[in-house]
Amino acid sequence: MNEIKVLKDGDITWVNGFKSSGVVADIKGSGGYKKDLAIIYCEKECVTAGVFTTNKVRSRTIDINKRNIEKGNINAIVVNSGNANACVGKKGYEDALRMTELTAEKLGLDKDKVLVCSTGVIGLQLPIKKIEKFIPKAVEKLSDNGGQDTIDAIMTTDLVKKHIAVEFEIENGQKIRIGGIAKGSGMIHPNMATMLGFITTDIKINKELLQEILKDITNKTFNMISVDRDTSTNDSLIIMANGLANNKEISDKNSIDYLIFKKALNFVMEYLAKSIARDGEGATKLIEVKVLNADSDKDAKNIGKSVITSPLVKTAIYGEDANWGRIITAIGYSDAEVEEGSIDIFVGDIKVCENGIGILESEIEINEELKKDEIIITIDVKIGEATARVWGCDLSYDYIKINADYRS
Amino acid sequence: MNEIKVLKDGDITWVNGFKSSGVVADIKGSGGYKKDLAIIYCEKECVTAGVFTTNKVRSRTIDINKRNIEKGNINAIVVNSGNANACVGKKGYEDALRMTELTAEKLGLDKDKVLVCSTGVIGLQLPIKKIEKFIPKAVEKLSDNGGQDTIDAIMTTDLVKKHIAVEFEIENGQKIRIGGIAKGSGMIHPNMATMLGFITTDIKINKELLQEILKDITNKTFNMISVDRDTSTNDSLIIMANGLANNKEISDKNSIDYLIFKKALNFVMEYLAKSIARDGEGATKLIEVKVLNADSDKDAKNIGKSVITSPLVKTAIYGEDANWGRIITAIGYSDAEVEEGSIDIFVGDIKVCENGIGILESEIEINEELKKDEIIITIDVKIGEATARVWGCDLSYDYIKINADYRS
Repeated sequence: MNEIKVLKDGDITWVNGFKSSGVVADIKGSGGYKKDLAIIYCEKECVTAGVFTTNKVRSRTIDINKRNIEKGNINAIVVNSGNANACVGKKGYEDALRMTELTAEKLGLDKDKVLVCSTGVIGLQLPIKKIEKFIPKAVEKLSDNGGQDTIDAIMTTDLVKKHIAVEFEIENGQKIRIGGIAKGSGMIHPNMATMLGFITTDIKINKELLQEILKDITNKTFNMISVDRDTSTNDSLIIMANGLANNKEISDKNSIDYLIFKKALNFVMEYLAKSIARDGEGATKLIEVKVLNADSDKDAKNIGKSVITSPLVKTAIYGEDANWGRIITAIGYSDAEVEEGSIDIFVGDIKVCENGIGILESEIEINEELKKDEIIITIDVKIGEATARVWGCDLSYDYIKINADYRS
Repeated sequence: MNEIKVLKDGDITWVNGFKSSGVVADIKGSGGYKKDLAIIYCEKECVTAGVFTTNKVRSRTIDINKRNIEKGNINAIVVNSGNANACVGKKGYEDALRMTELTAEKLGLDKDKVLVCSTGVIGLQLPIKKIEKFIPKAVEKLSDNGGQDTIDAIMTTDLVKKHIAVEFEIENGQKIRIGGIAKGSGMIHPNMATMLGFITTDIKINKELLQEILKDITNKTFNMISVDRDTSTNDSLIIMANGLANNKEISDKNSIDYLIFKKALNFVMEYLAKSIARDGEGATKLIEVKVLNADSDKDAKNIGKSVITSPLVKTAIYGEDANWGRIITAIGYSDAEVEEGSIDIFVGDIKVCENGIGILESEIEINEELKKDEIIITIDVKIGEATARVWGCDLSYDYIKINADYRS
């Protein structure tokens, strides 16, 4: 009991009752065979929660999703990549609504039971005719091993598929599953939620509690990653719980089942969030910054974010250079309460800076550490008791390459 | 009258009474012939003002300069490049003090009459023996055409020399000069002051007023540029006024002379600030973002800074791609009050987005605009009356190249 078992190659359709699909709709109009239209579906209505971008400039899909989640339970999500359906005025809202309507119609649902997500280029109208043409096909293709097609369909500049499924037992020994998929590689600096992430589970849980858990964990996982400080217009993370495990509904924050579920969901979300950071555009390394003994949670997060987003720190890590001066500089301008003379910095297990002063005699040992694929930077500010962990990636030539002509 | 005349190839020693020098002290220990130690000197005591980094992690030179400016008038500044004298503990303070002492001794001054600035690698002890050896030589070399040597000596990754001198007349027809030099290319996101900047003038002016003007103009010039969002540990901008023009001392904010001087100083500081942005590490283009009709000065600045620092905007400009979706996204996450449906965006004179929606029929015209060396992005948020101008540069492969192994 209480052990979280990772199911090899698992995804959202590894949870009982969920089907999904992914088809080619040629949304970017460039021909080719990349899947770009997906549906996630559960015949049984799901208790659903979501967290969405805080960017004031946002896709109207966000408004539709918030409203539909507010209204009641959800059966399906229709998703496209290749076009963000953002900054296109009223037409964007109409197109998004049309996507939910058509999906609902084909599935025999009310349109309010369907959510809609888009990701891709901003400012271009959705090719709604193509989408209308291929939604029926995506419905037709729904299957309980369609998860991998869905992952393909939501990817944009992602190089790596991001998916996981876990199984764990609640107090009475009943087995519960959680599956999750995500996409995101550039324009990643989530605030409230990130990119597109979809999580399924068969647990039975109270809706308000699900929303609260999702928000809590988002603040410790998805909101703690940054690829390039650009908070997107479309960030959405949605969890659907169909209750098919038929456990006693979780409705008490003090229950053991609540804690077990929260721990498992944290595991899944941290895994997906780190996958996004690791696959940041052009990234060659995952960077984790651990902040210890800060004055407040906010300070701990600020220090971590300041370091993880510093272009000079990111390029130094790319160059495998132990340039801790850039790290302490980023700590200093972070707005957090710090005393230069009491800051310790570790790269991996090696202390490079003690009480604000460099202490490395030789760089040979540290160079080995910097060759790793995952770099852990620990910062002890010795002021209070708050901690934070944030994740990001290095900044390489390929980031420039990818973004200097993403549209073409 | 009231015309600001730019003196071709001018610098700080083009102002009557100021001498300077630059010599090779091999501070980085790599051999070679790069000048890296400089002195700026005026026999007559100067009314002096300065603005310095707000980074909590800072070089102790900053503390010495603040104290000496507070204490009284200043005769000299000793500057080194190649080592920031930051994050080295108490030794850093002692070394900085030693630099002022030795310079003062050689010039026959009290040590409090000398300021000290350092720029370069953080976290390494200053090779004080070398500096002690070469300060006498730098004093010996002081000359009234030594400005160019001083510029050479303060540069690090700068590719371009940044200097200017102007002449203008105050109300009674007296001629006044201002000269300025600056260095800075990476770790540039000044907050309060930037990098190293030294300005000389022969105007006679009240000290408190000079400090106030310097701070005001810094907020509109040096604090409005960003290369990489990294606020340095050593940012310093110092102005020395020797009063040799012998004008009636400026001591009234409502006087015409005050306004004339402020305008001229603004001209000099804006020129130097833009020079730094244009020469940002790896930069191929200068970007100016003009924000119009924001709710407050703070909002206008936030919007401008958010756009000018966005890696996605910077790479798009590098790629000469009219990807205005990234601009509006950065406006949206800027914290400023904005309404997506009332945002207009111009690239050069061409409107690319009207009321939040893209309006370009063809990209041919805009592509011409994007080929220019200076890109002006105008953002009209149509909410209030505040405006701001900020400057930055594009993000290219060379930024990565320079920073992935700056130290080696």
